[in-house]
Formats: sequence, C-alpha cells, structure tokens
Amino acid sequence: MKAIRFAGPDSEPRIGVLDGDTIRDAGPAGPQGFVPTPEAWAALDAASGASHALDEVRVLPPVVPGKIVAIGLNYRSHAEESELDVPAVPVVFAKFPSSIIGHGDDIVIPREETRPDFEGELAVVIGRRTYRADAESALQAIGGITALHDVSGRRAQLETPLRQFTLGKSFDTFTPMGPAIASLDGIDLTDVAVRTTISGEVMQDANTRDLIFPVVDLVVYLSQGLTLEPGDVIATGTPGGVGDSRDPRRYLREGDVAEIEVGGVGTLRNGVRMEA
Amino acid sequence: MKAIRFAGPDSEPRIGVLDGDTIRDAGPAGPQGFVPTPEAWAALDAASGASHALDEVRVLPPVVPGKIVAIGLNYRSHAEESELDVPAVPVVFAKFPSSIIGHGDDIVIPREETRPDFEGELAVVIGRRTYRADAESALQAIGGITALHDVSGRRAQLETPLRQFTLGKSFDTFTPMGPAIASLDGIDLTDVAVRTTISGEVMQDANTRDLIFPVVDLVVYLSQGLTLEPGDVIATGTPGGVGDSRDPRRYLREGDVAEIEVGGVGTLRNGVRMEA
Repeated sequence: MKAIRFAGPDSEPRIGVLDGDTIRDAGPAGPQGFVPTPEAWAALDAASGASHALDEVRVLPPVVPGKIVAIGLNYRSHAEESELDVPAVPVVFAKFPSSIIGHGDDIVIPREETRPDFEGELAVVIGRRTYRADAESALQAIGGITALHDVSGRRAQLETPLRQFTLGKSFDTFTPMGPAIASLDGIDLTDVAVRTTISGEVMQDANTRDLIFPVVDLVVYLSQGLTLEPGDVIATGTPGGVGDSRDPRRYLREGDVAEIEVGGVGTLRNGVRMEA
Repeated sequence: MKAIRFAGPDSEPRIGVLDGDTIRDAGPAGPQGFVPTPEAWAALDAASGASHALDEVRVLPPVVPGKIVAIGLNYRSHAEESELDVPAVPVVFAKFPSSIIGHGDDIVIPREETRPDFEGELAVVIGRRTYRADAESALQAIGGITALHDVSGRRAQLETPLRQFTLGKSFDTFTPMGPAIASLDGIDLTDVAVRTTISGEVMQDANTRDLIFPVVDLVVYLSQGLTLEPGDVIATGTPGGVGDSRDPRRYLREGDVAEIEVGGVGTLRNGVRMEA
C-alpha cells in the first residue's frame, strides 16, 4: 500500500491511498503528514473516501520528519568514483527538513552554488520509536520507504573548510521526497532498485543489495545513542554515477528534469531551475 | 525580558516570564514552545498570570526548533587548540533536535562514547523568517538568545570516516538548552560573556567579541540558500578550553555538573551520567 499527501486547489493537506494514478481520500493530514505507524497504515487501509486523479492534485512531501539522517558513501561504486576509502562504519550527516519539497516541485539552485549535483536514494521512514535496536526490532521500526533526491551542492560540500556535508545538502528545495510512502508488504529491503534519470539519461542504476551497510544495519547502528522517532527519515546513500564524478562533469542545469525511481515506490520527478 | 517553558507536577507545558527566581505564568505552551516572534514577546509582556517559584517547576527547553544550525571553529582560541586553520567561511554542521534537553535534565553519555566533551555556546533563536538577509534584516531576524551546551562525543566526531560532526553531537541529551530565551533589549550581540564551568572549575571563559564570524554575519551567510524559520536555533561556536585539548585531557564523567553561563541569559546547569 502507498500513502500520499496532497492538496486540491482549495483544500488543506490530505492523506490518501495511492493506487496507480488514483488517490482514495483518507481525510485531513496532521502537521507531520503521514507518519507510517502500524496504526496509521491500518487506518489508511480502512479509508473509503472520494477518489481523486493524481494529476489533478498537488502532491506534497508525504511526511514532515523531525530529522533526516543521511548516509554518505554507502555504495562501493560511489566510494570508488569519489576516490575515497570504503568506510568502516557509516558516514552520517544531516539534511535540514527545511530543504524538503514534494514530487512536482522545482529544485532551485542558489546563485552561489556552482556545482549542483544529483543523488538518487532509497529513504526509509521510521514507524516506531526505537533505541538500541537489534536486527529484528530495527526491521519492525521501519514504517515504509520512499524515494529521496539528495541534491548536493558540491561547492558548499567539498570546497569549504573541514568538508562538512550538511550545508551543501540542505539548501532550500534540495530534498525532494516522495511521491508516496510504500509499506513494506512485499518489499525486500535488500533488493530494491534505485535509478536516477536526468533529462532522460540514466545516470545511476543500482540496487540496495549493493549497499555497504544494508538498511536494517543502519537502523541498528544509528539507534546506538540516537533515538529514532516515528516520522524520522534515513536517506540510505547514493550509488555511483553522480555528475561530479563523470567525465565530462554533468551538473544540474536550468530546465533539467530529475527522476528518482525506487522499486515499490514509483518515480519522484522534479524540474530544475536556477535562482533568479 | 526572559521567556521560559516549564511544567508543574500536574500541568502541561506552559510559558512564563522569568524574573529572578520567579516565573509569571503566561499560559499554555504550543508544541513548538516559545518562538520569539515580535508578537510572542508582546504577548509575554502583557502576561499577568499566577507566580511560580523557579525551583518548584520542571524547566523545559524553551523552544523546539525545526533545525539547529551549528558553527564549528568560530573562536580563534578553539581553532588553535584544535590545531586547525582559522576557517575562511563558517564551518556548518547540524545537531538533531531530538538531542535537546532542558535545564536540570541529565546529560547521558552513550556506552560507546569514550571521549565525551563539553562546549559552551551562545545560541540565537530566530524570530522572523529570513532569506538572503543583509546585516540589518539579519539583526531583526534574531528573536532572542539562549545558552546551549554543544556536548560533543569526540570518538564519533573525530574517529569516524570523513569526520562528519553531526552524529557525535546529536546523541540523545547532547543539546542542553536554556534555561530561558532572553530578548535583545539591552543586549549587544558583539559583547556577550560565555563561560563554561565543569564541577566548579572554569574551563572556558570568553566573549562574543572574539567570534571570527559575529552573530549577525552568521545569519547573513547561512540565509544565502537556506531559509531560517522562526524557532530555528543557531549555535554560534565554542571558545578555547574544551576537554579534548587539555593536558591532561578532561572528559565529562559520572557525577559532573556542567554549567554554561551566557550574559543576559543566566546559567544552564545539567548533571552528567553514564548510560547504564
């Protein structure tokens, strides 16, 4: 099942079940959007509201997380193209939630950012509060998955002192997320396809089976010291093929269309424009 | 004027005016606590509720920020003791809001963290939404100041690949904040004392006049690409004197009492214990 948050021309944000190109209305969204707790999924399953065509609503980011925990260099192919060692433990950084936009919104590149790059990722959304999870409770803590575009300003990320990733990955609009959250029914987290297409050209094409630290291991690792709360998002890392490592380099530019396709979720699509 | 968030033995969180050791009740707190907008300060000024003694309530973190933007190496004395160059632009990292605790709560060191360290800081709380601020609008965007303890797990911060600061600074309880938010009346942001005392010994003793990037400059810099929202917190950096740079090293240990004193705000006090 897929949960979507949306708004009609005159409506406040609502939650619905996305089935193909149709949304079954499940009522008003709370301020945090769809938090994929077991109770929220059960309520969604029972929804019997009006139907809306997907292309007649504005799609909103499905959830408003308290934190986005992002993982760097979690595919060997990306570590290699970045000329960095495969990490012994996960590389953890943050994306500020103020950078989130929904499916269909434009990514806007700030004037100062000369090296705007794309990174397609599988993101997991926490459904149960968890601390010091073992493998079993880690899996149970995952409420669903979505597609996340970890847009990355390489100038801010790599050219500033001490190379802290957070700022260059947190500019406004730099975290497209959605279009929906998929429940884990029928999804094997160790076998999910992740593909990034920029203006029709496939740039990244991978599978979570290639993750250095699989999804469940990330939840176990992070929850040692850090409580994961319902609605929190973990961006699990990007595979090889980013623009900054290509020859010639391929940065995002005005008019590009960025698509992140995640198996079981669908395709997250966003236009690109330069800040005026 | 100082705004405090607190709870009585049987009460939901409330906002009050802190005057010495007395709180004048200003009514129930919203989910985000005290967001220091001009309107919120005006409403607080007009409050005429019951009085409470400060030591008879539980003090809560004054605000629940959407993001905590933290600045590294912003005092020359700390850059020097860290054996790092003085940065040419601010070093930006994140502390996850899930790490916030209030005045009087215990800092709990996770089992794995072998190098828990202290960092006293002035924090500013945003009161007006701002993007691409100039110096004047940056000052107007600051709704107040508070004391922030940027507790830092040096193992996670410095021993992990690529030295991303966020995880080691975001463990649960690693961001004590408060006890109150002080309005800017009578405060000169370029002349605020910041002092850290651990179990009675003064460890850091500085003034914001020594900041490499003054507070207003940080708001100008950050708001290039990143919208600052009311309630957001900027931790402006710590001066020299941290435990990891001392000889012998001085880490936080069971039973320590950490005090961060910020001019115009007061003293933020927290005990320290090791996770069982």
